[in-house]
Amino acid sequence: MTQPAETTAEAAGATTAERAAMRRALELAAHGPSRGPNPRVGCVLLAPDGTVLAEGHHRGAGTAHAEVDALLQARSAHGPDAARGATAVVTLEPCAHHGRTGPCADALLDAGVARVVHAQRDPNPAAAGGAARLRAAGVDVVGGLLADEARALNAGWTRAVELGRPLVTWKLAASLDGRSAAADGTSRWITGRSARYDVHRLRAGVDAVLVGTGTALADDPDLTVRHAPLAGEQPARVVVGLRDLPTSSRLARAAAAGEPVHHLRTRDPHAVLDALWAREHRRVLLEGGPTLAAAFWRAGLVDEVVAYVAPVLIGLGKPAVADLGTGTIADAARLDLLDATVLAADADDPTDTTTVRLTLRPRKES
Amino acid sequence: MTQPAETTAEAAGATTAERAAMRRALELAAHGPSRGPNPRVGCVLLAPDGTVLAEGHHRGAGTAHAEVDALLQARSAHGPDAARGATAVVTLEPCAHHGRTGPCADALLDAGVARVVHAQRDPNPAAAGGAARLRAAGVDVVGGLLADEARALNAGWTRAVELGRPLVTWKLAASLDGRSAAADGTSRWITGRSARYDVHRLRAGVDAVLVGTGTALADDPDLTVRHAPLAGEQPARVVVGLRDLPTSSRLARAAAAGEPVHHLRTRDPHAVLDALWAREHRRVLLEGGPTLAAAFWRAGLVDEVVAYVAPVLIGLGKPAVADLGTGTIADAARLDLLDATVLAADADDPTDTTTVRLTLRPRKES
Repeated sequence: MTQPAETTAEAAGATTAERAAMRRALELAAHGPSRGPNPRVGCVLLAPDGTVLAEGHHRGAGTAHAEVDALLQARSAHGPDAARGATAVVTLEPCAHHGRTGPCADALLDAGVARVVHAQRDPNPAAAGGAARLRAAGVDVVGGLLADEARALNAGWTRAVELGRPLVTWKLAASLDGRSAAADGTSRWITGRSARYDVHRLRAGVDAVLVGTGTALADDPDLTVRHAPLAGEQPARVVVGLRDLPTSSRLARAAAAGEPVHHLRTRDPHAVLDALWAREHRRVLLEGGPTLAAAFWRAGLVDEVVAYVAPVLIGLGKPAVADLGTGTIADAARLDLLDATVLAADADDPTDTTTVRLTLRPRKES
Repeated sequence: MTQPAETTAEAAGATTAERAAMRRALELAAHGPSRGPNPRVGCVLLAPDGTVLAEGHHRGAGTAHAEVDALLQARSAHGPDAARGATAVVTLEPCAHHGRTGPCADALLDAGVARVVHAQRDPNPAAAGGAARLRAAGVDVVGGLLADEARALNAGWTRAVELGRPLVTWKLAASLDGRSAAADGTSRWITGRSARYDVHRLRAGVDAVLVGTGTALADDPDLTVRHAPLAGEQPARVVVGLRDLPTSSRLARAAAAGEPVHHLRTRDPHAVLDALWAREHRRVLLEGGPTLAAAFWRAGLVDEVVAYVAPVLIGLGKPAVADLGTGTIADAARLDLLDATVLAADADDPTDTTTVRLTLRPRKES
């Protein structure tokens, strides 16, 4: 790993021991949850002589924040006054708000911490102010140390918090000529098995998977994670649209069995994302169909596109992408290609198909 | 390079010196023409003691074949009887037919060559018989030595000769959602500059570039090779269809100026390829539009597809691919992906676009 440039001049005040502790805190943070409402945060408490007193990290919504976790470890090892005069090195600015747990800034003050060195500034308007509160109480605060690395660790969460809505990844599967089905509506399978398994990997990284009622009715999908490792529960499965699903459908049966399946009876993408945000969903996968995806696209609510392009030609058939509001080529939506990967077919299975996965980000016009 | 498996048992009769000479002959062959009616062929003449007498290779239609080139070199260096009792090591079975030049088999016999070791068997029914003619005249003939490598050197030519028609590469440029133009017909530019330059490289490797009259009328293309090195002349430019082009069009003006531009007034792909074959075209690039390409596809006359997929979404727009005769997904045309390459945009040009180039071969159903 190359040494990233410092992002703020403030970080110049950090010592060598604090820089090493921040690297360790970043390692600790990486053990935290990669989805859900909270970011991954790590904390190292240093004694005034620079030795490590304790380490902590956040393990998911409802559990202790990293600073509190580290304070608990310090008290457990060294007694109630362990952190008095200590320095807390933490990958994210300590929070100042009351959520499921109390503000970390207060916990640090109560423990008698004399100095706080943090990396990323808190992007959450509801949580920010921790550094100011600490400074006001006489604590020495240094911000911005290895902030780029800390931000990269929580890139999705940071963008979602900055936007104040869940990040949306649109999964698009199409033939080489942009079709999702033949003229008679038949579609299984255009992409290969390796691509279908890769979709389960995508699902495992989000808090909710979305489909429109049209796709739910046409394909009767299950939308669970099966062929990929899943940290924690299955993502929520969300059906969007006004039509009812038959009680015999897979999603209706899962809902009846108490699994997290929700039907949002709206066609407004903003309303959908508001409802998902209220449920603490930070990342969602939009699996189609074309009508729902186009509604999100036209509303400017697609943050990433993962396109599975199958080496298949259909000719006349159902377009994979619906009306995006583009009348002339100058209005066409340009995307930046982030990655192109060939998902190879199983050489032992002549019915399998290699698929090309393209990961793209819509280009924001300046 | 790994040692390829021998393709025929016959090659077992070759000596170590002959095998080394064949590797050298393959190197010489590679200097020959990569397009045009003739294959790339190299020849090394060995004295009875295994030392090299002379080398030769073919330089293009109308010039000496490799064997005759090597015989001329041998006579020039060692006198008129230089090749008496010699062994000719040649990458392709010597021809037995009268083309622009006399049969190589006769030239070898006249020179008194005692033994011939060749690699690839001649796939051309009109030219084959050279080995038999040599054997009938008492020459020792060994075939199949490094035949796979020799065939690979002339893969396109070999397939064209076996098929008895030009090989057809279909160039397809489309948005991520399979569109070639927006709803109002505007299309420039969907792909990036690096992709457009790459098309010039494709053109430089074929004998003729084809477009339908629809594309010729709509886009007024030039179809020349500009941004790629070109060995020899520009490929022929061929317009297919019944409609006239205006005399002011780029292609009509090029034809009036005596450049190789032809108008084939037919819609039958077989008739097109017959006419191109008669002009000694062995490889052609089908540049569109969708109607002409679909006609070739439905006739089973597409051997390779080069698809430029641009990271652009158009939504409603003109499909890049027309009716291929596919009604249901089971009839969709599956292709084998041979290569996927990202053609990166110029980082200094914000208007440029990265494009993904996919090279595919239609899967022949067994």
